Amino acid sequence: MPTDRIDTDVAMLQAANLNVVRIAESTWSTVEPQPGVFDFTHVDRALDAMEAAGIHVIVGTPTYAVPAWLVTSHPDVLAETSTGQGRYGARQIMNITHPAYLFHSERVIRALLEHTAHRSAVIGFQLDNETKYYDVASADVQRTFVTHLRATFDDDVDAMNRAFGLDYWSNRVDAWEDFPDVRGTINGSLAASFDRFRRSLVEEFLAWQAAIVREYARDDQFLTQNFDFDWGPGWSYGLQPAVDHFRAAACVDIAGVDIYHPTQSALTGKEIAFGGDMTRSIKGGANYLVLETQAQGQPAWLPYPGQLRLQAYSHLASGADAVMYWHWHSIHNSFETYWRGLLSHDLQANPTYDEAAVIGAELRRVGRSLVHLRKSNRVAVMVSNEALTALTWFSVETGFPAFRGPSIGYNDVLRWVYDALFELNVECDFVSADTEDLGRYAMVVVPALYSAPESTLQRLGAFVGDGGHLVSTFKSFVADEHVTVWHDQQPHSLTEVLGLTYNQFTVPVDVRLTLHGDLAATPGAAALSPDERSALRFMELLQPDGAEVLASYDHPAWGGQAAVTRHRAGAGTAIHLGTMTGPALVREVLALAVRDAGLWDWPQELAGTVTVRRGVNSAGAPLTYLLNYSDSPVQVTSPVTARCVLDGVSVEDGTDLTIGAWDLTILEEVRRLAAR
Amino acid sequence: MPTDRIDTDVAMLQAANLNVVRIAESTWSTVEPQPGVFDFTHVDRALDAMEAAGIHVIVGTPTYAVPAWLVTSHPDVLAETSTGQGRYGARQIMNITHPAYLFHSERVIRALLEHTAHRSAVIGFQLDNETKYYDVASADVQRTFVTHLRATFDDDVDAMNRAFGLDYWSNRVDAWEDFPDVRGTINGSLAASFDRFRRSLVEEFLAWQAAIVREYARDDQFLTQNFDFDWGPGWSYGLQPAVDHFRAAACVDIAGVDIYHPTQSALTGKEIAFGGDMTRSIKGGANYLVLETQAQGQPAWLPYPGQLRLQAYSHLASGADAVMYWHWHSIHNSFETYWRGLLSHDLQANPTYDEAAVIGAELRRVGRSLVHLRKSNRVAVMVSNEALTALTWFSVETGFPAFRGPSIGYNDVLRWVYDALFELNVECDFVSADTEDLGRYAMVVVPALYSAPESTLQRLGAFVGDGGHLVSTFKSFVADEHVTVWHDQQPHSLTEVLGLTYNQFTVPVDVRLTLHGDLAATPGAAALSPDERSALRFMELLQPDGAEVLASYDHPAWGGQAAVTRHRAGAGTAIHLGTMTGPALVREVLALAVRDAGLWDWPQELAGTVTVRRGVNSAGAPLTYLLNYSDSPVQVTSPVTARCVLDGVSVEDGTDLTIGAWDLTILEEVRRLAAR
Amino acid sequence: MPTDRIDTDVAMLQAANLNVVRIAESTWSTVEPQPGVFDFTHVDRALDAMEAAGIHVIVGTPTYAVPAWLVTSHPDVLAETSTGQGRYGARQIMNITHPAYLFHSERVIRALLEHTAHRSAVIGFQLDNETKYYDVASADVQRTFVTHLRATFDDDVDAMNRAFGLDYWSNRVDAWEDFPDVRGTINGSLAASFDRFRRSLVEEFLAWQAAIVREYARDDQFLTQNFDFDWGPGWSYGLQPAVDHFRAAACVDIAGVDIYHPTQSALTGKEIAFGGDMTRSIKGGANYLVLETQAQGQPAWLPYPGQLRLQAYSHLASGADAVMYWHWHSIHNSFETYWRGLLSHDLQANPTYDEAAVIGAELRRVGRSLVHLRKSNRVAVMVSNEALTALTWFSVETGFPAFRGPSIGYNDVLRWVYDALFELNVECDFVSADTEDLGRYAMVVVPALYSAPESTLQRLGAFVGDGGHLVSTFKSFVADEHVTVWHDQQPHSLTEVLGLTYNQFTVPVDVRLTLHGDLAATPGAAALSPDERSALRFMELLQPDGAEVLASYDHPAWGGQAAVTRHRAGAGTAIHLGTMTGPALVREVLALAVRDAGLWDWPQELAGTVTVRRGVNSAGAPLTYLLNYSDSPVQVTSPVTARCVLDGVSVEDGTDLTIGAWDLTILEEVRRLAAR
Repeated sequence: MPTDRIDTDVAMLQAANLNVVRIAESTWSTVEPQPGVFDFTHVDRALDAMEAAGIHVIVGTPTYAVPAWLVTSHPDVLAETSTGQGRYGARQIMNITHPAYLFHSERVIRALLEHTAHRSAVIGFQLDNETKYYDVASADVQRTFVTHLRATFDDDVDAMNRAFGLDYWSNRVDAWEDFPDVRGTINGSLAASFDRFRRSLVEEFLAWQAAIVREYARDDQFLTQNFDFDWGPGWSYGLQPAVDHFRAAACVDIAGVDIYHPTQSALTGKEIAFGGDMTRSIKGGANYLVLETQAQGQPAWLPYPGQLRLQAYSHLASGADAVMYWHWHSIHNSFETYWRGLLSHDLQANPTYDEAAVIGAELRRVGRSLVHLRKSNRVAVMVSNEALTALTWFSVETGFPAFRGPSIGYNDVLRWVYDALFELNVECDFVSADTEDLGRYAMVVVPALYSAPESTLQRLGAFVGDGGHLVSTFKSFVADEHVTVWHDQQPHSLTEVLGLTYNQFTVPVDVRLTLHGDLAATPGAAALSPDERSALRFMELLQPDGAEVLASYDHPAWGGQAAVTRHRAGAGTAIHLGTMTGPALVREVLALAVRDAGLWDWPQELAGTVTVRRGVNSAGAPLTYLLNYSDSPVQVTSPVTARCVLDGVSVEDGTDLTIGAWDLTILEEVRRLAAR
Repeated sequence: MPTDRIDTDVAMLQAANLNVVRIAESTWSTVEPQPGVFDFTHVDRALDAMEAAGIHVIVGTPTYAVPAWLVTSHPDVLAETSTGQGRYGARQIMNITHPAYLFHSERVIRALLEHTAHRSAVIGFQLDNETKYYDVASADVQRTFVTHLRATFDDDVDAMNRAFGLDYWSNRVDAWEDFPDVRGTINGSLAASFDRFRRSLVEEFLAWQAAIVREYARDDQFLTQNFDFDWGPGWSYGLQPAVDHFRAAACVDIAGVDIYHPTQSALTGKEIAFGGDMTRSIKGGANYLVLETQAQGQPAWLPYPGQLRLQAYSHLASGADAVMYWHWHSIHNSFETYWRGLLSHDLQANPTYDEAAVIGAELRRVGRSLVHLRKSNRVAVMVSNEALTALTWFSVETGFPAFRGPSIGYNDVLRWVYDALFELNVECDFVSADTEDLGRYAMVVVPALYSAPESTLQRLGAFVGDGGHLVSTFKSFVADEHVTVWHDQQPHSLTEVLGLTYNQFTVPVDVRLTLHGDLAATPGAAALSPDERSALRFMELLQPDGAEVLASYDHPAWGGQAAVTRHRAGAGTAIHLGTMTGPALVREVLALAVRDAGLWDWPQELAGTVTVRRGVNSAGAPLTYLLNYSDSPVQVTSPVTARCVLDGVSVEDGTDLTIGAWDLTILEEVRRLAAR
Repeated sequence: MPTDRIDTDVAMLQAANLNVVRIAESTWSTVEPQPGVFDFTHVDRALDAMEAAGIHVIVGTPTYAVPAWLVTSHPDVLAETSTGQGRYGARQIMNITHPAYLFHSERVIRALLEHTAHRSAVIGFQLDNETKYYDVASADVQRTFVTHLRATFDDDVDAMNRAFGLDYWSNRVDAWEDFPDVRGTINGSLAASFDRFRRSLVEEFLAWQAAIVREYARDDQFLTQNFDFDWGPGWSYGLQPAVDHFRAAACVDIAGVDIYHPTQSALTGKEIAFGGDMTRSIKGGANYLVLETQAQGQPAWLPYPGQLRLQAYSHLASGADAVMYWHWHSIHNSFETYWRGLLSHDLQANPTYDEAAVIGAELRRVGRSLVHLRKSNRVAVMVSNEALTALTWFSVETGFPAFRGPSIGYNDVLRWVYDALFELNVECDFVSADTEDLGRYAMVVVPALYSAPESTLQRLGAFVGDGGHLVSTFKSFVADEHVTVWHDQQPHSLTEVLGLTYNQFTVPVDVRLTLHGDLAATPGAAALSPDERSALRFMELLQPDGAEVLASYDHPAWGGQAAVTRHRAGAGTAIHLGTMTGPALVREVLALAVRDAGLWDWPQELAGTVTVRRGVNSAGAPLTYLLNYSDSPVQVTSPVTARCVLDGVSVEDGTDLTIGAWDLTILEEVRRLAAR
């Protein structure tokens, strides 16, 4: 802050009913200006002010940005990466396993915790921030990796050579001591193994921090971490490549997340829902904290009137129990000067702050009806860090690493199916590929599960056999956990479940799909233009062996070969999408699966009109969010008899509701109409 | 030269009336083949021949390209840059503060000067060439930078931390000895400070060379330097980022410049005028030398018939006292083989050389009427290296460094307003942000002055108060001289002068402008298509507080917010452009300001028909250049009673004049019609 | 192989009549797992199985991919390149002159040869694979280069400075010991000299390997190398920049090649013909082996039904004596997992394998009529590694290195003329610029021969004088063998032969060509649209001095200047294309030259309908391939009386023939109709 105005800030926080702040994260150089010399003036000042104002505080450990003195003393604390030794300056550039980093991290964490844990305002602690492995490939990390491989392969170097196919291009490692710098490898199996190993470093690091913090935390204080997502197109987009969230979240009490997304005319709610569904799922359906989301955000993200409010409720509708902004005020220097806070640089009220105050007032009034939302989704999407990594080495379209040509990646396939479900108002959980708990779902969607162990495939087969409904896509079930392609009929283990096999595939050029059977019979599918029926990006030439053909290719050379199939196997069904399609067609395919699974209900009827997100609140009442992500008001007929939470008005099932542009209605259900 | 043909060259120079040559620049390895071993054979040969022919010579010090032996002996003479240690080969790759470089530079300069200064042909000396700091970040330079910071902040490291906002992301430097390698910094204030410091190295280096050369130069010999411009799109485009020309020019007697520009159908005269106005301005309006401009240039630049001549007179029309070509003949090897001279590789006459000879003959005949042109412009454009650097860290469109996404830069905004003035036939000077001399202008245009000290803002306010007419653009007056954003109402200090404030901004998507008041009333503005009224790139949501709204945004969310304002403050007016527009609309806004400033005259009436450039020649007669940058002849009515300099014909005010394609007329005024 | 199934593989090879395999290449880490420890188990297993099955084997030396232990022991075995020291992992990354590499290479080669040369299945040996110099610029290689320069210039450093123009930008090297790191040079002459020197390292390395292998090879065993091409757009495209194939092929008995090309709707036969014509030419017209071509290839290359067969015969039609696929089966790990073999990952039959079996069966039946095809082409295209390198430094369009802006390169000009000849059914050989054997051709096409010694130009002049027909393009005859531009009238030495000179050139913007004389008179030319008559990329402003103008520029500034000329000089003619054109217009110009040369015949009449490739088989019978690279059947009238080789049917001259989509007919001629 350029001047001391903490009283003004607190007054403005209170005026907006903002009741929790995060502090201390990334302030290492301030709280420990010289090694072992601590200065908690700023921390104390904030805690004093917040305690006086009754505002809760989450204290973050400051370890994700190292002070200059640490790097001056121990230059190799900076991670050596694939591009060489780093330079001091940015955050998140250190070797998180370096002893000097761990030594100093522990000392500052202990000092901070000792200083703050007893304070009444402090409700919890955030471990580090957006922790990753920062592409570390320092010599010590590589040495540990070799040790890890020796353990994995029981010290049998030949087993490793076989598992990874290292004989190819003379890459065989005959003795562990000959292990070359892994950064140069062209072997995708080895590289993927290194990435998985490095993801485990994140888990170990967070668990190590958690253990330290728990020595100080009171029973009523929680531990969280701020998870984030693949930032591909410049916002929270897909599965995080560098962290296995399901594993990393084990050490915290409550998951935290940051979700940033396009806004203005590009606000769709998808990123909020995607991030929320993921964060809820990694802790088994528990509520979570949105530790960061945009206030004014980047210049292009200034929200339209109404959008900040719509966004906040969108988070709650996914199960968030808090929405916090990054950050309170816009800062006046350094890298994030234009990652604008609720306040602009003038530190005065502005339309965005004013809208936050509207939200604050509303939540103060009705928040009790909204928090602790529980979901019981019947649909799951299976995700896999391993498959994501593998597809960076064996790209969908080129078959080669991404640098050899453009290709969609794992997250594009994931979002292709997720977004279609969202558009259908089909809510879902995410499950990891090693989950043993598929039984609670009626339908599982498996996008591009390129590599997975045999056990995962067996579980998916059993799921179908037991009456489950599986939807899988191209590039699934191709390789084992070492990213070695199966050498029997593809899709290995699941040929009988899917009722098909294939051994040829290519990239579609001017290929359309011809629809058949139930798929052709839907009005939506019948209305698709030829362009909307294009095969995109990749196409498997499926050979049905029991499966029904839902779509086939229309092309001089590939004509008549199957593209989308459905197989009734055991008590369930298995749909396979052998090619990518436009969004409208994949929606039709997924709608078919939803109907097969017996899940079709009124939210699906509202698809295309309004977004529906549902759950049960802490009072046990069903809550329905009707969210309008558009610049025009929409008219819907209330699907339920309920009380509108925000204005208290009661509506009958069948009542006409108008939801304004970028606005919403929340219905707390009285009773649900049996037959529609 | 592949063969000895100096007599032929001299004869061809004389035949074309070319009367000055530059020699010796960049020939270090030839004049000093081994350390301390000098060989001036080539220099003597050239001087002998030129003296015999009566051709003047400018001798350049050879220091901008180092010999191999210097780098073999002292490898660290090469600048270490942000990309690491350089390799020998290119020019302009050394650390200009390295003692070994300075030692050897001084020795070769002294030897050359001793050898040449007394020669009668030598009229002046060029110091080095296009000197810059070459992105040097060698350890010694960084150490000097820290020393500079200690002086700047009176040894108070906390003051520096505060000024730069280094606490952010734990970048605080608690002790000077902990100062990290600045190349990794993510702090734009620190980085901008380093760049400003490095620009000062250029000033020091040139002053050091000047002092040496002056020990040898006769009183009738001048010192110059060859300044150049931002080379963004592949030609002389905007303000030079790496040199503060206003400061660096202090040590020379006469400014030199190289100006390269698109030609053929892309020849507009704008780059010539821009470069000329700048070079004239950096020495307070004095005439300057075009030390380099293109002859045949790059392959795509071969001039159409007539263009070489039009270009030469364009330079004179801006105040140049000489036009020299880079270079005499096309060279037969090495990097600039296809940066073609007047002669092609065959060293024979060709159409370009022939046209140079036409120019030479004309200038021999009429040059006396044209040289020493004086301008008394009433309009100034304020430029700032500091703002330019700051906007590379805080890009107009993204708010982040340029590498985080595409954005227009400072020079795009500068050229946006400069080009509009040029198209209006409004001639201007450039002033630096620390000029104390605004009083002689009626109108000052301030594009994107992102960072500037309080004193600059005060001066601009006083300028308006005193009756001046200010036109400022978006992204002006945002931050102080440390690139710290002001934390009070924006635009800091100028809210009352501009009669507005704002604290929100975004990037326009499908935003049009609605025009109001005087702006809407102009016929030109009324004729603009909706596309021509688009908001582009960036938009401030202006809140008028006294200002009149000249344009507002037309958009569902931002509708009605002010985009362009005018405020009558004190005796003057202040127009603010809160968004970028197309060229036609900014011309209308600037035309309004020109009228407000009482500067509207007949050249503005000719805008769009012919380019007008004016001044007073050494005989005290007003000169008017009418320049036709098009491939069609234009008809104009002579605005003055005058003598056509080139053909001697007299014209009355009102006489019809035809100016051919890529041709011009120069009118030496007899009297000026009082009322039009 | 994931499992032992060699018996299955052999059975499938036999079933498809595949009768030769390549083994051992790139298996160094397997055959020598530790230094000096050899394990030939896999090699023996393969040889045993192949011998039992009567399948021939080519044994490759394994040296193009080094084992990890070699790099662990001698890290500097990896080439230091322009981007620094390499990392272990990829193939083709070593310094092929490093003593440790040569020592270990020799030992493994000798061990392998000793082990395999006596085996009956072994018909020949492949030396290394796709050998290049891998951009090596290690210190020892640079030292050898300086030694090479001392020899080239008789130890006269001034001679080198003059030849390369090193004085420019102070690059002069006054003493050999001052020679700087050549990687930083901006002197294209020096850089081109270094590249030529490095190409000679490839020749030396292969000759060294050949000498070792010959110590072991039986008289009935051949030596080959697998040459490949410029891989610019992602497939075999043009002249190989890093190897002089004409020189490197001297040490082998039979040339080998790999040819990869687009397929599906982009299959044109051009890459197959280009690669075949080149490989045949580098060994003086001898037959060659296609050691690698695609089976299923990359994902986008899966062949349409019929294409694999059409491709195989296309290779034979160019003179190949074998077609081998890379590779037998798709591999299950590592870099080329998706460079798919005949078998997919499931190792079962599939449509591509099945089509290979069709080819195998056909060749078993009729192969004897097809092998050992001899060509007697009357047209040659002159190619030059030196010109190619030079044009990377002096790009066609920019005149500067490629990194300074986009430009077509040498191979684009080469393919522009080659493809036009192919489309005209004009078959050609390639000759190098130092060939002394032009006399056997009636017509020589010289694309972009930017740099060449005087002797080449003299030979081309003599060729025309003696009645030859020359077609040269822009950017030819510009510079000498040191890439120094000639300083007399251009085109140096050939002004009289071409009947023109020029000394200006530029890049065409909206320039069309006006056709004249014989060129305007052809129906094809008359039908060209204005767009098809555009000047593209580069244009010389030709000044005819005796030459007839076939095309002139249509443009306000360049109008009327000559663009394409023809000169009757001595007994021959010389056509010069001063600009690039679209494919249709260059075809018309080349057709004119073909007619001038008296080579116009019925294949040219079939151009546009079907591709014709011809030769004489080992029985002395003329063979004609009629190849249909399209997805529609074509109708032609048989041009000869012949037997259809594939189906045995006899056809009379004039018989209607239908050739299916992606199909072909091979006619073994009985007699040739005299008059058509």
